[in-house]
Amino acid sequence: MQLRILPYRFATTALWLLFVSLACLSAGVWAAESNDPLPSWSDGKTKQAIVSFVEKTTRQGSPGFVPENQRIATFDNDGTLWAEQPVYFQLIYALDQVKKMAPQHPEWKSEEPFASALKGDMEKLMASGKEGLMKIIAATHADMTADEFSENVSQWLKTARHPKTNRPYNEMIYQPMLELLDYLRANGFKTFIVSGGGIDFMRVFAEQTYGIPPDQVVGSSLKAEYKVRNGKPEIVKLADINLVNDKEGKPVGIHRYIGQRPLFAAGNSDGDFQMLEWTTAGKGPRFGLLLHHTDDKREWAYDRKSHIGRLEKGLDQAKDRGWTVIDMQQDWNQVFPVATP
Amino acid sequence: MQLRILPYRFATTALWLLFVSLACLSAGVWAAESNDPLPSWSDGKTKQAIVSFVEKTTRQGSPGFVPENQRIATFDNDGTLWAEQPVYFQLIYALDQVKKMAPQHPEWKSEEPFASALKGDMEKLMASGKEGLMKIIAATHADMTADEFSENVSQWLKTARHPKTNRPYNEMIYQPMLELLDYLRANGFKTFIVSGGGIDFMRVFAEQTYGIPPDQVVGSSLKAEYKVRNGKPEIVKLADINLVNDKEGKPVGIHRYIGQRPLFAAGNSDGDFQMLEWTTAGKGPRFGLLLHHTDDKREWAYDRKSHIGRLEKGLDQAKDRGWTVIDMQQDWNQVFPVATP
Repeated sequence: MQLRILPYRFATTALWLLFVSLACLSAGVWAAESNDPLPSWSDGKTKQAIVSFVEKTTRQGSPGFVPENQRIATFDNDGTLWAEQPVYFQLIYALDQVKKMAPQHPEWKSEEPFASALKGDMEKLMASGKEGLMKIIAATHADMTADEFSENVSQWLKTARHPKTNRPYNEMIYQPMLELLDYLRANGFKTFIVSGGGIDFMRVFAEQTYGIPPDQVVGSSLKAEYKVRNGKPEIVKLADINLVNDKEGKPVGIHRYIGQRPLFAAGNSDGDFQMLEWTTAGKGPRFGLLLHHTDDKREWAYDRKSHIGRLEKGLDQAKDRGWTVIDMQQDWNQVFPVATP
Repeated sequence: MQLRILPYRFATTALWLLFVSLACLSAGVWAAESNDPLPSWSDGKTKQAIVSFVEKTTRQGSPGFVPENQRIATFDNDGTLWAEQPVYFQLIYALDQVKKMAPQHPEWKSEEPFASALKGDMEKLMASGKEGLMKIIAATHADMTADEFSENVSQWLKTARHPKTNRPYNEMIYQPMLELLDYLRANGFKTFIVSGGGIDFMRVFAEQTYGIPPDQVVGSSLKAEYKVRNGKPEIVKLADINLVNDKEGKPVGIHRYIGQRPLFAAGNSDGDFQMLEWTTAGKGPRFGLLLHHTDDKREWAYDRKSHIGRLEKGLDQAKDRGWTVIDMQQDWNQVFPVATP
């Protein structure tokens, strides 16, 4: 909890403030609260487990001490750092791009999966399966330079708004997770995103939004090629999958990009199961963290039967594997950051 | 130049030292020399070009100022950070492994390319071409876990010695380049290796040798898969190429791993041409650096006709493209670090 600066207009207020301060100081509460690195996390066993782990692994002389160059923390993105309902935001981006590009593609009116995408018929779109999705990806993510793609995403983030909250998508992020990222970094951890989402998509906003630079973002990707066109060197994105960084693809992505096993891994769905399994199978202290979406008032409540971010195996095995499960409703006293005015 | 601590036995020596110190101080030489971040670089236009670039891009208020999060520096490894003669050290590793594994593979005595590898017949080995090389790679770099591979490389580095100098391979590194890496990092640059060499091979020594952590190493790679065997999660290296990080593969590797265009790129062969081209085609100040091996006394002299590290296009175009070429013989007053006793 941040200490609010109270108006200092009346002597009585000043006096009251002084009393409260003294009372807090004597109880040690002031110091504890103002230094709390995780103010949006309710006091309880989840927060305590995180803090204990960080203290244990970073305190010189502690039996669980881990040198700074091995303090790797990986975070899933969709449903872990930002929301993923009603559908993955990158899919919303793709559909918005289809709409934007439609005037140049009159044939899409009768051609699937574009016809369903343009009508907003999600059920029929999903029925087009992997092949259909790949056509949407090819049309909206490939056959353009990497710079053009980044520019498109950047423009979209400025104008697109979440259907439920009307906030920009990069404000649909979890305040407690921002604090956790900061807390880990302040303790010498190097923080990475390891997500099934597109690497080039996330890199557009990850640094500004999460403080995670482009080279610390691992995600799914398309192949690319280097071309010099009219004397101008370019990276061109191809309509051909390079890596699906999900499920058993996550430890592979971690190996490929990070090159060492994480000390700490956080996710929210069974797509993160193998990342947590790989992480916590390492020697010495390791931390596996799962975010359980239990809050249908402030966010959404979903798990075993959800079409997005299904969490079943993780819930069943978390206890046996020693993973910590965040109960969003109980453990977070704030979900999203206060809106920028 | 490092200031040597002179024996302090005689008063005359002490007096002389004092005089020299005073003389240096009054001329500003002492201060300049003891603060020189690049002491193994001879004073001259190469060193000056590097220092000017770093000062221009890092001085607040300079028209060429670049924010710290965009200060990306990429270095080739073979022939740029460490030597590459008589052949790439990773090939020597592979051949050493073939010899080590031979007792378990009696069929190799008559099976190419292993027979030539075991006899040390490099010419015949090379004549086996890509297909032959791929067989050597498959036998020595695949069908094992990533951990097993790292352990093998680590063991090899401890015992293998360079045929000419009898030094461990990870001491066949260029002292001036170590200073350049340190100098760039001290000025807020993030340093990466971008090499045609194997990513898993380089990651074993890059941090200790160059101060470059595993996640900042980009190289060629094999595909890998995640498997849980007898309850133990493992990353298994497969005999299938994932990325050839050479020539036009280097900008692709940079895009894939680093996600932004470098500000500074250093290489030594035409395999680095596209990396320098991509780097220096960016907006604002950029730096392209090529190491020309001109020193057959302290190292090797080779360029246009070499079978390893051929440098032809780079030499022809460096001037027009504004790239800086290091003349090893002229520009470096020391090549390798002083041997550890």
